[in-house]
Amino acid sequence: MNTFINAKDLGNLNVALKEALRIKKDRFSYKDLGRDKTLLMVFFNSSLRTRLSTQKAAMNLGMNTMILDINAGTWKLETERGVVMDADKPEHILEAIPVMGCYCDIIGVRSFAKLENKSDDYSENILKQFVQYSGKPVFSMEGATTHPLQSFADLITIEEFKTNSCPKVVLSWVPHPKSLPQAVPNSFADFMNEANINLVITHPEGYELDPKFVRKAPVEYDQMKAFRGADFVYAKNWSAFKDAYYGQILSEDHSWTIDIAKMNLTNNAKFMHCLPVRRNIVVTDEVIESSRSIVIQEAANREISSQTILKRMLETFKT
Amino acid sequence: MNTFINAKDLGNLNVALKEALRIKKDRFSYKDLGRDKTLLMVFFNSSLRTRLSTQKAAMNLGMNTMILDINAGTWKLETERGVVMDADKPEHILEAIPVMGCYCDIIGVRSFAKLENKSDDYSENILKQFVQYSGKPVFSMEGATTHPLQSFADLITIEEFKTNSCPKVVLSWVPHPKSLPQAVPNSFADFMNEANINLVITHPEGYELDPKFVRKAPVEYDQMKAFRGADFVYAKNWSAFKDAYYGQILSEDHSWTIDIAKMNLTNNAKFMHCLPVRRNIVVTDEVIESSRSIVIQEAANREISSQTILKRMLETFKT
Amino acid sequence: MNTFINAKDLGNLNVALKEALRIKKDRFSYKDLGRDKTLLMVFFNSSLRTRLSTQKAAMNLGMNTMILDINAGTWKLETERGVVMDADKPEHILEAIPVMGCYCDIIGVRSFAKLENKSDDYSENILKQFVQYSGKPVFSMEGATTHPLQSFADLITIEEFKTNSCPKVVLSWVPHPKSLPQAVPNSFADFMNEANINLVITHPEGYELDPKFVRKAPVEYDQMKAFRGADFVYAKNWSAFKDAYYGQILSEDHSWTIDIAKMNLTNNAKFMHCLPVRRNIVVTDEVIESSRSIVIQEAANREISSQTILKRMLETFKT
Repeated sequence: MNTFINAKDLGNLNVALKEALRIKKDRFSYKDLGRDKTLLMVFFNSSLRTRLSTQKAAMNLGMNTMILDINAGTWKLETERGVVMDADKPEHILEAIPVMGCYCDIIGVRSFAKLENKSDDYSENILKQFVQYSGKPVFSMEGATTHPLQSFADLITIEEFKTNSCPKVVLSWVPHPKSLPQAVPNSFADFMNEANINLVITHPEGYELDPKFVRKAPVEYDQMKAFRGADFVYAKNWSAFKDAYYGQILSEDHSWTIDIAKMNLTNNAKFMHCLPVRRNIVVTDEVIESSRSIVIQEAANREISSQTILKRMLETFKT
Repeated sequence: MNTFINAKDLGNLNVALKEALRIKKDRFSYKDLGRDKTLLMVFFNSSLRTRLSTQKAAMNLGMNTMILDINAGTWKLETERGVVMDADKPEHILEAIPVMGCYCDIIGVRSFAKLENKSDDYSENILKQFVQYSGKPVFSMEGATTHPLQSFADLITIEEFKTNSCPKVVLSWVPHPKSLPQAVPNSFADFMNEANINLVITHPEGYELDPKFVRKAPVEYDQMKAFRGADFVYAKNWSAFKDAYYGQILSEDHSWTIDIAKMNLTNNAKFMHCLPVRRNIVVTDEVIESSRSIVIQEAANREISSQTILKRMLETFKT
Repeated sequence: MNTFINAKDLGNLNVALKEALRIKKDRFSYKDLGRDKTLLMVFFNSSLRTRLSTQKAAMNLGMNTMILDINAGTWKLETERGVVMDADKPEHILEAIPVMGCYCDIIGVRSFAKLENKSDDYSENILKQFVQYSGKPVFSMEGATTHPLQSFADLITIEEFKTNSCPKVVLSWVPHPKSLPQAVPNSFADFMNEANINLVITHPEGYELDPKFVRKAPVEYDQMKAFRGADFVYAKNWSAFKDAYYGQILSEDHSWTIDIAKMNLTNNAKFMHCLPVRRNIVVTDEVIESSRSIVIQEAANREISSQTILKRMLETFKT
């Protein structure tokens, strides 16, 4: 595997899931793969879970790790061709990326959506340039439009906690005080669809996601209806995707907050969230502190998700 | 050992001292203990000595290390229950801490006193929540009220430099232009008392420390008198502990600066300070540059202090 | 080798070059040298290439690495003796440096010129104090006046790409919107001279470099003339060295930008630059994207340059 941005980059997800669960049982048994190999993690945005879990995964595999925190304020990259570089950007991405590629074997990149221009965000310009110019395998640590390490961890978690072979999984929009990207719901829909999971998406009208990720998943505007019979409730806020309102908050409708009354409509569903989560806006204390909440186990699987991707990338060096 | 915040967490200090001196002789002989184990260092405040010495100690033991610098300005943790999280704190400590615990085996935490509210500081709220919610052994890298890694390093240094079996150790308040926490003098008194060392504390009236740490140590308001016959002079500034003046500077009395004339009152005492030190306010150039000053050897023992604590915590995994 | 600041610290450069090329062929075969040894990298200024390449080089040698980013805004070091430290600098370099030396085996230091006071910059005060007070081997990761890791990488690159035994190498001043130090051209001249390479320096009148580094290298004020017959063109901006104008921009003459017309005057010369490079000011897109540009290969050799220096320093511990 040379690139990891979307679900299909993992190939057959059942095979990938089995591999992940095998790794989880004995995470230190692949250290020969990573010997003398170096992971470079490039952060254009801040991180807690992704930073720690990916670094831990690399160390599990015996890799060295290097972290580059790019403070957008002090070190800017020019991305346009033909520019006379006399302003505030001292380096062009056409030099910076191949140079980073020189000093490592695998590169992880975090570069969030700016939510200013839809076609800019959905071009995934930064990630694609790393793929094109670094000369090394590249994986997303959350791009502008997808967060595949999160969604693969989510899939592993659903596999571990499901109590029937065909669980109903509900992705529910929830309110939030800030405008957030669509990366997490996009990837979640992408992975659920790719794994043939029974996915239902629920959100207020106007919050429709990119059809490329939603595909044939039913969309239900009545949250209550969507929750009936659910085995998993996956809560996440996102801003509007529609051209006219891209990146905007259309409503902060607090009636969409997930509380016990709504969870009681479900088939004793587990509650999931990628974290960080704003309590009593996204979800009530009562729900997130209940035994139905599996957010910590879900976060713990981020290590396994990253390790599976890194292991696959390392294996390409053996041939 | 599962927690390291106070002297008593180390058990018998003579046993701990012997272990520390054994480690110092051959610091790389315990690398099997740390194999595939990861230390997470969480800094809510900046650090030089603690950061480097603890990282070095972990590497001596064969551990992997990860560092999380929490910039209070950009990533704030909600600590109150029941709050509607619609303001500037995107994550609750009830999620953040268990998540950090997922990706490591041992956690070190630095979280200074804010000196705004005495009961807040003395509750050690941050450290205690790490102990309660991380599921991992936790040690203080300087909390609001204690700095045990420093004080254990101080004890090791006194053991190495003492010329008689029952040295007189004087903890002396000194002036400083900024308001400083009581963590270092608290822990110093705690460790000296616990080790049955002949401790005398001297400071201007009004700077009395928490009796919980001072215990039976005599307090002398006349610095000159206190210095007579001293084998070690330990200089440190702190702000007021008394309720009415908590965190305040009551005086910057520069007659308390430690100079050669005062050192000449002692029994050829060694000069100690935890660093960083403001020269010619805390202590004169002449004293700190003299052969009586053992501040560098004291700082060097920070590595041994940390390694002893980490070794003890690693040993709990073997059972 | 205990210090690396200037070309002569490497001894015979032909021997060093052969060693570097041997390392490049098998960079992981010296890991016994670095076992249980720790590199501390101290950055007073930001870094991309130096940070990653030096960390990678240390890991290639089996070393542990620790990084200290000194934010000039929050953590300042007093460097004057006898000062009453009651202002914004909490620690004296006389304590800070020996303490850093306690926790590591080798120290790399980056501390740029401030371009405010020539004798301050040219004293290399910070680097020299690390050499004097750390008790450990110290190398420059770009000081105020030299950047030897860069220039040794440049020499390796010229060795790899030269097509005749005595290539003509032209160091050319180029325009730049900001005032830059002389460290890179100083070291480049130093290394070329020390290696007996046929060096020609070209720049507008007024931009004369320190004669200590220029030595017998011819200086040509006509860029076109200088380029004739060149095998390598090394572009770099610098500010004035002359006392009256120290650190100033005398001209931003854009006629000095390197374009294809100028490259066509050469003997099919390779184009070199230390990066980051401002496109279409220093050099046109056309030149830097052409097959004549070897800037990425040059950057890749930074790893080899650092590894050679670290290997030599590690070897001193074996005796």
